[in-house]
Amino acid sequence: MDDETAIKDLITRWVDAVGNCDLDGVLVDHAPDIVMFDVPPPDDGIRGLDAYRDSWPAFFDFQRSGAVFELLELDITAGQEVAFAWALLRCGTPADLAANPDTRLRLTIGLRKDNGRWRVTHEHHSFCLR
Amino acid sequence: MDDETAIKDLITRWVDAVGNCDLDGVLVDHAPDIVMFDVPPPDDGIRGLDAYRDSWPAFFDFQRSGAVFELLELDITAGQEVAFAWALLRCGTPADLAANPDTRLRLTIGLRKDNGRWRVTHEHHSFCLR
Repeated sequence: MDDETAIKDLITRWVDAVGNCDLDGVLVDHAPDIVMFDVPPPDDGIRGLDAYRDSWPAFFDFQRSGAVFELLELDITAGQEVAFAWALLRCGTPADLAANPDTRLRLTIGLRKDNGRWRVTHEHHSFCLR
Repeated sequence: MDDETAIKDLITRWVDAVGNCDLDGVLVDHAPDIVMFDVPPPDDGIRGLDAYRDSWPAFFDFQRSGAVFELLELDITAGQEVAFAWALLRCGTPADLAANPDTRLRLTIGLRKDNGRWRVTHEHHSFCLR
């Protein structure tokens, strides 16, 4: 499997794990030194896998209330050892999406190959400010 | 010069060009196919160098009103052909920064080496939602 295909598979598995509230699946391809810029604070990022793990239960509660997390577009730039990807997602409750159908969650992912295996070391999630 | 140093120099030159409202300096290391997720809409990104160029005059007006754009932290992951970086900046007017001193502009940059020269192909700028 080439690097771009491997990364596409990794990201689509991660999106599915988020959608299924599957915490082990969300974490399995992430590096211990992950730095995540999330939608809510802290401004200076969620640093390290323990803090990253702790950020998910609140989002799973949001999904259990009916919110969707649906990948619409994915673009990957892969080297042999370093890669990044950007994506656009529909993310919100049915009421959110009905009120603002064009709102997109913007996502950028940075990856590094460790011992032949791609790992996510950076995530940046945001919405536009209005 | 190694790749990480070259990218650090590129990004610090770009930050300086933004701060100096130097449009040519802002554009010089960017690829024709740049995709930028900016703080304001459009939700699905600013696509292509012409649209990227057109996004800057409004921000330069904001800076001429007194806003700062100051790099606080920069982390680079560089391969031989692909790289990404994340950064935290102070960005706002003196009144913004006095009211919210811990607010940070979060920035992720994706780069690709074309004919031996690093080019920015992706930028993601955001603030947390409060």
